[in-house]
Parts: sequence; structure tokens; C-alpha cells
Amino acid sequence: MTPVPAPAALPTEVTVVNVGLPLFADAVRAQGRPVEQLDWRIPANGDPQLLAALTVLLGREAARVDAANAEVFRRLDTGVPFWTAVATAGDVLPGLDGRTLLHCGPAIEWPDVADPLRRSMRAATVAEGWAADVAEADGLLRAGGVRLAPANLHAAVLPMATALGPSMPVVVVENEAGGTRAYSALNQGPGDVAWFGRETDAAIARLRFLRDVAGPLLAGAVAQAGPVDVLGLAAQGLAMGDDVHMRTQASTNLLIRHLLPQLVAADRPAAVEFARFLSADHLFFLNLAMAAAKSLTLWAEQVTDSSIVTTMARNGTTFGVGLAGSPTWFLAEAPEIGAALYNPGLGPDSGARDIGDSAVLELVGLGGAAAAGSPAVAAFLGGTMADALAVTENMADICHGPSSRFRLPTLDLRGTPVGVDARLVAKLGVTPKVNTGILHVSDGTGQVGAGVATAPLRCFTDAVLDLARRLR
Amino acid sequence: MTPVPAPAALPTEVTVVNVGLPLFADAVRAQGRPVEQLDWRIPANGDPQLLAALTVLLGREAARVDAANAEVFRRLDTGVPFWTAVATAGDVLPGLDGRTLLHCGPAIEWPDVADPLRRSMRAATVAEGWAADVAEADGLLRAGGVRLAPANLHAAVLPMATALGPSMPVVVVENEAGGTRAYSALNQGPGDVAWFGRETDAAIARLRFLRDVAGPLLAGAVAQAGPVDVLGLAAQGLAMGDDVHMRTQASTNLLIRHLLPQLVAADRPAAVEFARFLSADHLFFLNLAMAAAKSLTLWAEQVTDSSIVTTMARNGTTFGVGLAGSPTWFLAEAPEIGAALYNPGLGPDSGARDIGDSAVLELVGLGGAAAAGSPAVAAFLGGTMADALAVTENMADICHGPSSRFRLPTLDLRGTPVGVDARLVAKLGVTPKVNTGILHVSDGTGQVGAGVATAPLRCFTDAVLDLARRLR
Repeated sequence: MTPVPAPAALPTEVTVVNVGLPLFADAVRAQGRPVEQLDWRIPANGDPQLLAALTVLLGREAARVDAANAEVFRRLDTGVPFWTAVATAGDVLPGLDGRTLLHCGPAIEWPDVADPLRRSMRAATVAEGWAADVAEADGLLRAGGVRLAPANLHAAVLPMATALGPSMPVVVVENEAGGTRAYSALNQGPGDVAWFGRETDAAIARLRFLRDVAGPLLAGAVAQAGPVDVLGLAAQGLAMGDDVHMRTQASTNLLIRHLLPQLVAADRPAAVEFARFLSADHLFFLNLAMAAAKSLTLWAEQVTDSSIVTTMARNGTTFGVGLAGSPTWFLAEAPEIGAALYNPGLGPDSGARDIGDSAVLELVGLGGAAAAGSPAVAAFLGGTMADALAVTENMADICHGPSSRFRLPTLDLRGTPVGVDARLVAKLGVTPKVNTGILHVSDGTGQVGAGVATAPLRCFTDAVLDLARRLR
Repeated sequence: MTPVPAPAALPTEVTVVNVGLPLFADAVRAQGRPVEQLDWRIPANGDPQLLAALTVLLGREAARVDAANAEVFRRLDTGVPFWTAVATAGDVLPGLDGRTLLHCGPAIEWPDVADPLRRSMRAATVAEGWAADVAEADGLLRAGGVRLAPANLHAAVLPMATALGPSMPVVVVENEAGGTRAYSALNQGPGDVAWFGRETDAAIARLRFLRDVAGPLLAGAVAQAGPVDVLGLAAQGLAMGDDVHMRTQASTNLLIRHLLPQLVAADRPAAVEFARFLSADHLFFLNLAMAAAKSLTLWAEQVTDSSIVTTMARNGTTFGVGLAGSPTWFLAEAPEIGAALYNPGLGPDSGARDIGDSAVLELVGLGGAAAAGSPAVAAFLGGTMADALAVTENMADICHGPSSRFRLPTLDLRGTPVGVDARLVAKLGVTPKVNTGILHVSDGTGQVGAGVATAPLRCFTDAVLDLARRLR
């Protein structure tokens, strides 16, 4: 018998995998057919200049950049910064003298300063004794009678709209392995405070309290307690639901417990006044964590040929990004803040643009990188743990690797992403997410909400083009 | 044409679902065939007497028991106990007078008292001034010169081997909705302490410190701060990785922050001495949580006809269980502690039997019920979060329902199981898991590890038989 050939078999079921634009997938789905959508985008959005740069940085020079990045990552991941002292800013900050105010973010002149930062600067000018009241302070600042300088260029980092004068106390954080030292102001607490863009008598009184009461008391407490392992506490706090940026409740409590004997033994009545303040300040640890992160980026930025971001700072007007190995910052307009939760009755119209140096935390595995571990932060990022996870995964897509010290219980103790690689940012068109508070845009009422800011892409693509030029 | 009938279709693939004994499933699996194993057991292990009782409690009288259980659950789940005061035990505990020591667990006479509890009782006898040293205390106790009484019968609960004399301070916790008031000792802290079965000079000195320094100081602090919402703090602590039994670190820190102004303002040098103690005691909150839980079980146990457990307490020799609506406790030998982590060089041989009243926490949704939320506790339960989850799921199988206040971030904010239903325990043969520390069995070296104890089944089956008799 001659075998009869089987008829050509046609599949009875057809499914579609769509790569790229979801438009096609949507059309198939509309016909009730199964479809798998693969999220693929043209690298670098097809920009020829950027593609050329990436061809260098991910091709011919990839090994050189990878080696530099590995060392930058090591420094960000393994440095152990200790809080060693509280000192007067003018005594310890390099180059902070005379009538100078340090501020967050890139360099800026008075006419361009955002409303909340202006108010904070006026309050600081009064607290420094350079003006009798905020009206006089305004005149002095407007006339250029106070020099404005970025805190980052003085080894310091300042959250939100904090302005720092030479008489104010700073925390001193030392990274012995790297030989670096970084600073931050004392956290000003909640409510009617200058770092939220307030310039009331109470906000000015708070600055004087920090200088006259809190600073000396904490200086004594930390001297007696001995150096404090800041990121050791942060790692514990992270396992207790802090992202250590928007929420530092657990870390602050761990610090309070650690310093309790010294706080109780401090001189009265300052001790009692400070205890009342500290007991109500959930964000006290924020500034310490920032100084610790800065002490690591100062070490990491000494590595050349790297594509990892070691500066990410905003002043409410511009957003600045710098890579390890280069002093140049790349600027773009500071973004508005998305996925936010506003105080009742307020909305996006009331929010100022992204402000503060606290994004330094996102560079070392905290804040947005750690969002997936924080139910409290999830409430500000959309409401569910899935929203918080998305922010962490977004960071993981563009980071060098997982932290060895910051581990997320909600992700089976996976390390948070560390080391934002500008090559990946440029290639994917995905920028870091920064957990942040939101200040009122114009009326000086202070904090109006919190949410997540998306860093502007151009800062990163410009940094990538510059690195490619430098390596060519 | 006559249609030709299709041949009888035999399945080309056979899979097996095995119900009950896994032996059969194992045999199929050994032949390389797919098999689904369904974990089914004969109800009540086939015991005819118990099956008859369950037929009453889950059949004819089910509605009556269900209604009682719903009310018991409501009381355990919704009562809001406040820490209102610190007082001297003899002044406030009903019936605590003369030479009486309260102890954990069921009533017991000296010859049967376990080694760690004997040591703690001798230390307490010396601290009370009834004996000059532990040798003299031993003689007095041996001769019946000190009355021993279960703390639970005096509205108090005591963790581990704590022994409480009338001169010692207690926390007072009030449940206003239920009109109940419960007590616990102050936590004695880590190390060389009587509640871990130590009877050294240091352990006795710690008892005196709690009485003479800590008690009066805390009495003043809580009076000034106002009533403290104990389970409100516990719920926050749970979201920060506490099971609020084996680990109370976050809850303790929240309490410290809350009381910081009062602790700093307290009289010196007591304030400084107490701050040093409190700063090192991660379990300070444990006793407060226990008193809060007891204030709820005291309310719940006023409901009759219920099958929910309102007493679960161990003295290191016997384990006692009582249901709401009945004063009778059902006893069995206290179990050894499984799934434990021991100090280096020590193992199960060194561990005493399960001890302490802290299992009251497992009755209100804390401890084992909350294990799934605690990475720190997971380390003691097998090492992985899956091990911790298994303990919580074990409790969920035998509990009335999920807590409305204790919610687990690791389980998408699911409530922890509350209200151990003895009917379900008896039917499934599954008993509660209790997170607990382990004391040395005989040499007085104190804590040697921690793990999870499995409550003995007989206490629960006896309680079920008794309830069925009462309802017949």
C-alpha cells in the first residue's frame, strides 16, 4: 500500500505576541483573541547621537565603564558612615563663611529661587541675625547681600527647602574607609517650619531652638554615646517599614532608643524641651541618613570613567545630575510631583516643583529604591503594595546591582537597587523615582502632600553624551 | 449509509488524587505518575467520645456556640485596653496579701515547680525581704512558708518564669468597654534576671531596681503622659516586624518615643538609671501587651456556651487551657519546645519545658498568630518567611476569624487569626503554636534559645468534652 500523505496541518488556535507599540496588541485584544504584549522600546528612543554614545559606552568602552562602575558600586554599597559629632556649620564646612546661605540643588540666583526656598532663606537670614525681620531679609537677599551656594559643593546635603547659615548646627558623618566626611542640618521637625517653606515667627524660633538648644545637647549626647552606625540603623529601619526617605519613623525610634541614656542625662531644661521636640519628629533620622549617603557619594565620585550617578539634587527650579569622576552637573527643569497624595482640599495646582538634596538617598538604595518594603509609603504612591513595588522595580531596571545591606522582607530579603547607571537610564528612557514631600507653590503654608517625583531624562542623556565624549 | 459507531474512548492520560494517608500518593509518585495529595484526616482522629461531643457542638448546638463565639471574638477583637497606671502589686491585685508569690500557669505546689521557676521564686522571696539569701529562701519555700498562687486567678499574667511578690510594681491596664482591669509585672530585661530562671545577686538587685527605681518613675511618667493605647502601639509594631511576643522591638521603641518627654523630665538619678535599663530592654513592651490581652480575655470569658479559648498558660510543668464561660482549666504536661534556635553549643537537652503566661498573646492575634509578619521571628521558626507563614496559617485553621486591627503587610494586610476555637482544634487535631523563649532546664544559666511550642492536644479535647457535657 502506498501511504496516503496526511493533509497539511493548519493550527487550530492562533495567539499573538506583540513587540513594541501596544496599539497592535490592543487591536487583537479588541477582537477577543489572546495576545501577549512585550514592552520593548527602541533603545535611546532612536536618538542617533545618543545611540552613538551608547555604542561607545556599552560597546568599545564597556569594559572600562563596567570596571569603574563596579568600584563605584562597591563604595556606595559597603562604606560604613558613622555619625561622630554635631558642630557649628561655619566652623566645619569647607568654605562656609561670611554672609552665606547654603541651599539644596544646583547653584541658583535669587531671581530664580522658588517661592518655598525664598521663604526658608528669609527665615534663615533673620535667624542668623542679618536682618530684623523677613521684610528686611527680603531686601537684603534681593540686593545680593547674602551669598547663595549649593550645599552639595560644601560636602553637605539639605532636605526640602532647608537653608543653612554659618551659625546653625550640622551633623558630621564620617566614612572612614573612604576618608570622606559629609554634613547635614538638623531636621526641623513637622508643622510650621522653614524647611517646608514657612517664614513665620514660629519657623524662625524653631531655627533658633535648633541652634541654641538642640545642637549643643546633641553634640554632648553623641560625644558621650560614641559614633553611631547610621546605615546600620537605616537597614534595621528598612526592615521595619521605612523607605528611609519619606518615612523614617522606625529608624528615628531606633536612634531615640540608642541615645536614650544620653538624652535623659543632658542638662535641663534643654533636655526636656528637646525631648518634646524629638518625640514629635518622625523625620529626625532623615538628615542623618542623607549625610551618610553623601559621605558615600563623595567617596564614589572619586572614581573616573563611571556612568553611575553620584549627584542628584533639586532646588525647586532646576534638577541636577552628576556622574562619578566628573565635576559637571547636567541640568533640567525640576519636575512636578506625580502619584501624590495631597492634604484634604488641595491638589496638584498647589504643589511646588521637586525640591531638596534628599534624592541622594535614592543613589544608595533607599527612598524610591526601597519603596517596596514600606506599606506607609505605598499609601503615597498609589495606595497598594503593588504600586510601591513598581517604584522599586523601576529603580532595579536602571541600577548596577542589589544592596548587600538594605534588604526587603516583602521581597524575601532581596537587596534594594543601588547605583543608578546613566547608560541604562538613557537606553531605556527610564529615570529614577524619588520619594518626596510636596510644598505649597506660592502661599507659604508649608507641606501640602507627598508623592514620587520622576527625574527628568535630559540630565541623564546629557551626562551620557558627556561621558562618551570624555572616553572617546 | 449507516453511521459507524465510534470506538469506546479510553483516556490517554490518568492522574491520581489521593485523599488521606500520603502512603498511596507516594507509591504513585514512585512510578513517575502525577498525583495530587489532599491532606485529609479523620475528624477528631476517630475518637468516638470526641466525635459525639463535636456532633453536639458542630451540629445540634452549633448555632448556640457560634453566637457565643461571635461575641467572644468581638470582645477579643475590638476592646481597646489602655495602660493607665503603675502600682504596687499588693495594693491593687485582688487577694494578693501576706507571704504570697504569684506565678505563671496553672496552680502548682513547690515539689512540682520546674527548676527555672524555683530559682525565680527564691530570688523573689529574697527581694521581698522574707529571706536573707537564696538558701534561706529555699528552706522557706520548701517548708510551705510562702503561698504560691497562679497570677491568672488574680487578673494578672506573668511572662516566662516571672514570680511576683506583693511589694513589686505592676502595670495596670484597663479595658473600659468591658469594665475589666488586668495586670502584669514590669519586664525585667535581658541577661542575668529572675524571669529567665536566674537567682544571682544581680538578678535580685534587678528586682529591687524595678521596685525602688523603675516602678515609681514609670508611675509618674504614665500619670503625666496620660493613658497609653497599648494595642494601638502593638498594631503599629506588628506592621514593623514585631510578632509582639518573641519580638517587641518596634513596639518598645514606639513606647519609648511616646514617653520620651516624661522619661527625660523624671527625677534624677533614677531617670538616668532607668534610661540605661530601658534602652537595653527590647522586650519591655511584652508585659504591657500581655496585660492588655488579659484585660480582653477577662471580658471575653464572661460569655457562656463558647468554645473559644480564653486561658492558655504554662508553669513549666503543666499546660492549662480554659474556655470562655467556664472556670475549669484542663491540664496536660507542658510541652518541650520545637523548631527552636539555641545559643551556640546548646541544644534541646538544655531546654526547660514551655513556661509563662505569655501565650495569652496568641489568643488575641499576636505571637504565633502574627509570625508571618516578622522576619526576625522567622529566624527562630526554621529560618525562612515560609516557616513563619506556616505558623500563622496553622493558627488561621483553628481560629474564629481575622483581626480587624492586627494586619500583616507581608500578607497584603490580612488580619492575624483571633479566637482559638477548641472545636476546630479537636476536629483537626491541630493545636496553637506559641512563640516563646527557652530557659535552661536545670543549671540556672537563664535563656538558652527561643522557638515555637505546640500546645498539647488533650487540654483542648478535654475542654470540648466538658463543653458538650455542659450543653447537653
